[in-house]
Amino acid sequence: MTIETHPQDQAQEHKTPPWNKRVLEKRATQLALIPSAWHLPAPLLANPPASSIDTICASGILSAEELTWTETADIRDLVELVKSRRVTSEALTTAFCKRAAIAQQVTKCLTEIFFDKALQRARELDDHLLRTGEIVGPLHGVPVSVKDRFDVEGFDTTIGWVGLTNKPAKSNSSIVQLLESMGAVLYVKTNVPQSLMMSDSYNHVFGQSVNALNHALISGGSSGGQGALLGSRGSVLGIGTDIGGSIRVPSNLQGLYSICPTTGRVPWDCSFLHQHYLITPVAGPMATSLATTEYFMENHLASSPWNVDPNLVPIPWRKELATPPANRKLRLGVVFDDGVVKPQPPVARAMRETVDSLRAAGHEGILADGGQHCRSLCKIVDEPLIEGMVVGKEADLLSHEEREQFEGTKLTLQTAFLKQWISSEIDALLLPVLPWVGYKPKTWVKSKQWLGYTAMWNLLDYAGVTVPVARADRGLDSVGSGCNPEWEGHSIRNESDAFNYLQYDADLVHGMPICVQIVGGRFGEEKAVAVGKVVDELMNPTPFQS
Amino acid sequence: MTIETHPQDQAQEHKTPPWNKRVLEKRATQLALIPSAWHLPAPLLANPPASSIDTICASGILSAEELTWTETADIRDLVELVKSRRVTSEALTTAFCKRAAIAQQVTKCLTEIFFDKALQRARELDDHLLRTGEIVGPLHGVPVSVKDRFDVEGFDTTIGWVGLTNKPAKSNSSIVQLLESMGAVLYVKTNVPQSLMMSDSYNHVFGQSVNALNHALISGGSSGGQGALLGSRGSVLGIGTDIGGSIRVPSNLQGLYSICPTTGRVPWDCSFLHQHYLITPVAGPMATSLATTEYFMENHLASSPWNVDPNLVPIPWRKELATPPANRKLRLGVVFDDGVVKPQPPVARAMRETVDSLRAAGHEGILADGGQHCRSLCKIVDEPLIEGMVVGKEADLLSHEEREQFEGTKLTLQTAFLKQWISSEIDALLLPVLPWVGYKPKTWVKSKQWLGYTAMWNLLDYAGVTVPVARADRGLDSVGSGCNPEWEGHSIRNESDAFNYLQYDADLVHGMPICVQIVGGRFGEEKAVAVGKVVDELMNPTPFQS
Repeated sequence: MTIETHPQDQAQEHKTPPWNKRVLEKRATQLALIPSAWHLPAPLLANPPASSIDTICASGILSAEELTWTETADIRDLVELVKSRRVTSEALTTAFCKRAAIAQQVTKCLTEIFFDKALQRARELDDHLLRTGEIVGPLHGVPVSVKDRFDVEGFDTTIGWVGLTNKPAKSNSSIVQLLESMGAVLYVKTNVPQSLMMSDSYNHVFGQSVNALNHALISGGSSGGQGALLGSRGSVLGIGTDIGGSIRVPSNLQGLYSICPTTGRVPWDCSFLHQHYLITPVAGPMATSLATTEYFMENHLASSPWNVDPNLVPIPWRKELATPPANRKLRLGVVFDDGVVKPQPPVARAMRETVDSLRAAGHEGILADGGQHCRSLCKIVDEPLIEGMVVGKEADLLSHEEREQFEGTKLTLQTAFLKQWISSEIDALLLPVLPWVGYKPKTWVKSKQWLGYTAMWNLLDYAGVTVPVARADRGLDSVGSGCNPEWEGHSIRNESDAFNYLQYDADLVHGMPICVQIVGGRFGEEKAVAVGKVVDELMNPTPFQS
Repeated sequence: MTIETHPQDQAQEHKTPPWNKRVLEKRATQLALIPSAWHLPAPLLANPPASSIDTICASGILSAEELTWTETADIRDLVELVKSRRVTSEALTTAFCKRAAIAQQVTKCLTEIFFDKALQRARELDDHLLRTGEIVGPLHGVPVSVKDRFDVEGFDTTIGWVGLTNKPAKSNSSIVQLLESMGAVLYVKTNVPQSLMMSDSYNHVFGQSVNALNHALISGGSSGGQGALLGSRGSVLGIGTDIGGSIRVPSNLQGLYSICPTTGRVPWDCSFLHQHYLITPVAGPMATSLATTEYFMENHLASSPWNVDPNLVPIPWRKELATPPANRKLRLGVVFDDGVVKPQPPVARAMRETVDSLRAAGHEGILADGGQHCRSLCKIVDEPLIEGMVVGKEADLLSHEEREQFEGTKLTLQTAFLKQWISSEIDALLLPVLPWVGYKPKTWVKSKQWLGYTAMWNLLDYAGVTVPVARADRGLDSVGSGCNPEWEGHSIRNESDAFNYLQYDADLVHGMPICVQIVGGRFGEEKAVAVGKVVDELMNPTPFQS
């Protein structure tokens, strides 16, 4: 089935609301920050290929070397290039600026652009290395992108609100301070949905961010711009934030590796809002390789970030936990279907193939009991709870009694789940990130979306990792092909399940990546990464190319 | 000056409110749980010595051995006695039950009493050791007391409310589960103020808890019963809770060692309240030696309590940080006076003597700059902020906007203070626990009390330790003796300061202990203990006898 454009959407596009002038000015300013040499030729811009990777190649704007550098998945290789002075930070930064500039033109993945500042900083780092023979830190000279949620001094943090344009931040967020102290070069901020509380990143200021791999589909949210930029290889490492899936959903949609940590490991600080969230938001790395996410975590935690951000916990990266056990196989819980919304055929197949590969390698899936237990526990986090928290109600709409009741329910659930988790003795839990594969823009908001596969881990404050494992395939995943009898005979469970079922279109999502989510428990970043390494090695004998 | 009994207090005592019958029943039940052989002889009960230590000796209820065991300050010695089977847990538990029973009769330090259950448990532990040759855990067979704030299955958690009597808890709090898994024997719960939000522990159900060392004075609060029980040596280790000074104030008043940790290290869970506190409450150990508090922390954290309580953080006890540095002297910040309420003469002298001893031993006090900095930072936490949080307003009286504003202010303060703390490079900050030494019952509520010396560390979530260092002395600390010119020429600063100034009575508080507070920063329990060891060794060449 296809999606009709909602008549109201079309009507809205013809309105000229009072803030329109500010939007036009902001967009003009934004465009002017991209050097004209990096503007796509008009014919290509008017009719670009579906994937920004192809557009970037077709544009001829990047040299062969620049293409190679930006397509490097492991950040350690880039650090080594700069450190050994085979490539200057200025050259590397230029390459990523070019690529980000092109990605922006076709995916609207950026908000703030500050290439000049980045190149100035890159030259300073190059000078420093030349002069002293020393690197500033473990990210010396490598460009890193941040979500438009963190303050960068001198630039807006609009998070998609017209009213917040032209209000440059007076200081840097902790994560920005820490990235700079590690030697990183900041060059762009990435696009988000207006409220941050959606899996589709569009807003009146910066427009609709679309998927790097297929511009007909969304990039996800709320770290959607970050996902599209990384998917375009316009960044090697980005920092996103997550309160219900905002790191993991765009990572899934663009086939990226990411870590959504437990609170207290990566600074999440923001100048504009200090409300008490009933679920605590977190920040974490998104990248094109698992090694990059681990490199960030390890070096970030080695920099004693708890001396900068008072909400962090002094636990270094525990390398021994992040290494797959040498003397035994993994013990994994698996949830194929949480019983609320049935995953679409490509997602079910991705899970099945991963579990089959793990089993073939001798690892234990503990579906028989653990799976059932986990599934019933997942169900405890029922729809109203999650929905009220993540998508629907604002915290300020809850009365004191409701809030207190919620805190009580949350603690009871956390305690019960912890008990089950510890007694199951699993290394991690494997489950889908999303029950769907891809949406066209502005489809997400049209029905009650189910974020249970991701948001339940925010509620529990458990760390999770995404690893791409498969691609949707119209041959393997088509309805009516006979290979999906369970899907075809599916009885609709609820409104969210109905929407998810009806939206499935094997042709529309053909070729789109699918990640598995590996949940490692509270402060289980290292364990989830260890399992992620095993899954990645099994499922991606050659690097996954998003 | 002396304190007049408030006319209203007297009037209230003659009322017979509707809940009176339940109170009388509860008190009768409580008394009946003390074997008659342990009841004090009527003449002694009618006219006991000022200190419960003297009453206990005079009663003849404990044997010489029982007196020796219960007066042992280092819990490791008791564990060793039981482990080596020189003393049975049953005999040791009996000794502590006797002592707690007597302390209760003169200080009203207890709420729930369950000696039978304790002795049954002790016998089981003895059997286990005899049968297997193994101890159950690091607290094998040793009695431990808990504040009437934690649930013990089958017993009330009234926290001083008549309406909560006869509602036995259905399960154990996490700390109770963990203590039992460590082999501890639980035998009593300790008294609290009705609201928990006071430094004077009295309530309609269990009455007025008084100071173990001088029954004319209060035991403090809100862990006041715990303080009085430990001060009577009716317990070797107790677990209290603190949101503004509730562990440190009773520890100070009874000359005890205590650790008030950063949130996340000791379980604070409660069945009856899940409201979001603007300042997070914590639980921690109170004891008659620093070694006992450290032994608890080290072994508690070795038991992976984060596998039981979902709010804990997986950081073991970092022994290396809890050891004074071998190759350098300490660098300490010192705050003699926070500028809001001037400490009474014995407190000022205790601080002075401690700093002088530290200096004589070659340690650095950094008064000249750090002191001033710290002092100005202390002032940031102004009266309305602390008062609104800890003493006055309930969280539910704050509007959403006020709450949000408070969270913002808190984060700004925490960030600013952290920056100052790190750049000062201090091992710890030394300051008074309280500006006063002792109050008669029901004096505390009569004026606006200043909890800034303790509550500011709750706001910052910094760990603190108390160490007794001196005793009030009417000779050394009398007004008019000429030794306190600064106090005598003091200009009143505000209402709290006026009350504190006018209440001072050198005769009333003669002989009462005074602690210093050692603040070690966020997750700075180990650092504060390391500094505590140095202070304790300097100030108490022979063990401090409370």
